[in-house]
Amino acid sequence: MSRYLVISSDCHAGLPPEKYRDYLDPQFRDAFDLALPIQIAHTKAAAKMFLVDDINTEWRKDIEHELTGAWDHDQRIKVLDDDGIAGEIIYPDGITEMNMPPFGAGLSLSTVGVVPELQWAGARAHNRWLAELCQMAPERRAGVAIVPALWDIDDAVKEVRWARENGLRGGIMIPPMWGKLAPYHDPKYNPLWAVCEELDMPVNVHSGPADTENYFGPMPAPEGQQPHPGAMGIYICEVAWYMARPLTFMIWGGVFERYPKLKMILTEGTSVWAPEYLAMMDQRYSETHYSAKLGDYRSHLSMKPSDYFNRNVFLGASCMPRREAELRHEIGVGNLMWGSDYPHPEGTWPTTRDQMIETFHGVPDAEIERMLGGNALEVFGFDREKLASIVARVGPEKSSFQD
Amino acid sequence: MSRYLVISSDCHAGLPPEKYRDYLDPQFRDAFDLALPIQIAHTKAAAKMFLVDDINTEWRKDIEHELTGAWDHDQRIKVLDDDGIAGEIIYPDGITEMNMPPFGAGLSLSTVGVVPELQWAGARAHNRWLAELCQMAPERRAGVAIVPALWDIDDAVKEVRWARENGLRGGIMIPPMWGKLAPYHDPKYNPLWAVCEELDMPVNVHSGPADTENYFGPMPAPEGQQPHPGAMGIYICEVAWYMARPLTFMIWGGVFERYPKLKMILTEGTSVWAPEYLAMMDQRYSETHYSAKLGDYRSHLSMKPSDYFNRNVFLGASCMPRREAELRHEIGVGNLMWGSDYPHPEGTWPTTRDQMIETFHGVPDAEIERMLGGNALEVFGFDREKLASIVARVGPEKSSFQD
Repeated sequence: MSRYLVISSDCHAGLPPEKYRDYLDPQFRDAFDLALPIQIAHTKAAAKMFLVDDINTEWRKDIEHELTGAWDHDQRIKVLDDDGIAGEIIYPDGITEMNMPPFGAGLSLSTVGVVPELQWAGARAHNRWLAELCQMAPERRAGVAIVPALWDIDDAVKEVRWARENGLRGGIMIPPMWGKLAPYHDPKYNPLWAVCEELDMPVNVHSGPADTENYFGPMPAPEGQQPHPGAMGIYICEVAWYMARPLTFMIWGGVFERYPKLKMILTEGTSVWAPEYLAMMDQRYSETHYSAKLGDYRSHLSMKPSDYFNRNVFLGASCMPRREAELRHEIGVGNLMWGSDYPHPEGTWPTTRDQMIETFHGVPDAEIERMLGGNALEVFGFDREKLASIVARVGPEKSSFQD
Repeated sequence: MSRYLVISSDCHAGLPPEKYRDYLDPQFRDAFDLALPIQIAHTKAAAKMFLVDDINTEWRKDIEHELTGAWDHDQRIKVLDDDGIAGEIIYPDGITEMNMPPFGAGLSLSTVGVVPELQWAGARAHNRWLAELCQMAPERRAGVAIVPALWDIDDAVKEVRWARENGLRGGIMIPPMWGKLAPYHDPKYNPLWAVCEELDMPVNVHSGPADTENYFGPMPAPEGQQPHPGAMGIYICEVAWYMARPLTFMIWGGVFERYPKLKMILTEGTSVWAPEYLAMMDQRYSETHYSAKLGDYRSHLSMKPSDYFNRNVFLGASCMPRREAELRHEIGVGNLMWGSDYPHPEGTWPTTRDQMIETFHGVPDAEIERMLGGNALEVFGFDREKLASIVARVGPEKSSFQD
């Protein structure tokens, strides 16, 4: 093969908000009609609040057609082909702030101000549509089902089975933040981890939410009040931590001890924190001087934290920067999965090929293969044979990665 | 000099709880008498909850006399001499869970369930006593004044002036967590930063609090309910992040831009996170592809985040492990200050000399000098001449650090 098989571990898709209506269970359509204008107003206000409104509008001006790939099959195929991408993992929220599923069922899966039954209805509507989108190119698309796992656990388990049966082999996406509900070391989640292990459905956490009100102030902001100019800087630094937080709870909670084949994916939260954070966790686990005086918090784990990480955890390295490629051995070549983040404005599209080369140039071929696609292929169960003709047609030339 | 000047950047002192009464303003003594048994019961319950009660009791059994150095001048001098330590920075909470100032004025400075006026009264009582303790050996002791900075800012500014006038040149300690109050990028804190810069009073954040209820469950725990066995593991991993969190807010908040001589100290939150976290902050600050689409959140900062860190921020490296010495160039040799954490059970005492050697053996002499004491000497304004005779008597032999 003279070209790389590329699978983007981080892509997004979503319908224009009004189109989710048809995918909702009928009993929620009246609520949908009431909520839609509020949701649209709210997302517009948030875009203004975050000071990104003008910039996003400007960015979208000349590429509106290409961005319809957020929901349109043909356009999506064309964009991914142009990017050299054969397969993709699909999360919700296509065009940022414009394609969220209804009732707070988008990426952040907030627990604040949502009605659980409605959030579930929104999630199921998205999952139904996503299953259809994936069926149009099942060899290329691994859709991730939205699962608002913090509420009733039986609902969550049922949705995992539904998603598997309907071809959403990207697994499920659970909320990074749990608000006032049970964190992920709580045994109440055991049935969820069990069914995900049984059906080989990866558990995905995708970055997005953070402690926003602390950065930007109360929302909606009091009339005439501007957020602090540094608020966005704080957000884009802390958001990585909130994405990775479930890992800490699940490792110490013994989740990977009890479910050794469970796969966990952490996406778009950078990867640079992994080596030293895992080393610190291992030190906490191993060092008897420190740990002996804090009671027995280790004997329920038969391996050290980094062992669970290496075996069970994969990082969706969205717009992977050169630094993460340099740290690949410390992070784990087998744990890193490059992603393009299409169609988000911070993503690599439409300069994906150039950015890939900038990130990976000079890295040994076999390692690039794994990070650009080989790891994701195994984690999400793609079929290499079925992708071969696409790779031969669109995949980036290996020669361009070596000087 | 054949011996190292050692200054511990992290020591603790506190009175037995009942003795704080005499240092309180008289109008708070009735409240003190009511609160004392509740405080004692609460700390005992917390120790049981955290499963550390038996272990701490066992650890203290044969060293009860040495631990009275938490408040006793003579004993404290003896312990520090034995440890080879010439000078020290003194935070509150001497013997863990037993020497907290009253009314919630201890290390964690929680805002939950406290009365601001009483927390301030407790802080002032501790600061008065600490000033006395430091006056008994002013050349060796840099006391850190407790400043519950989240409430009224004028009170905070007044206490900084009082502390400076009363010899507490360790600076002030502010709460790592702000609960529902204003985070540290809020301009309301400007007068506090201004006075700390004016009087050369370092702003200290010391680790301790974290999102405890999320790890251990509600406190007090329902009858018969045990916390999850992994709760302590989660705590000791996340606590480092909560300690460092104010740094993110203060850098992006432009605090070090406006107050270029302000010193900030982050203590006992590990140092291993610094290199990659600062690199990520710099990337967020510098990379136009990512940042251009998020609005202007950078132009109020004239330098990149790591520049502020290098100039303004110092890390109290308590019980500094070998790994942090290995990373010293990435972290900053001039930013690291070793600490013993006496009299906390996780501290290096009573095997400080051995642990120092384990951490620093083979490191160049001039670098050890800075990390063991030289940096702290400058940051906290110790007088090298006045410490020389103590160093000559008790300092660890340089030769034992080189094979």
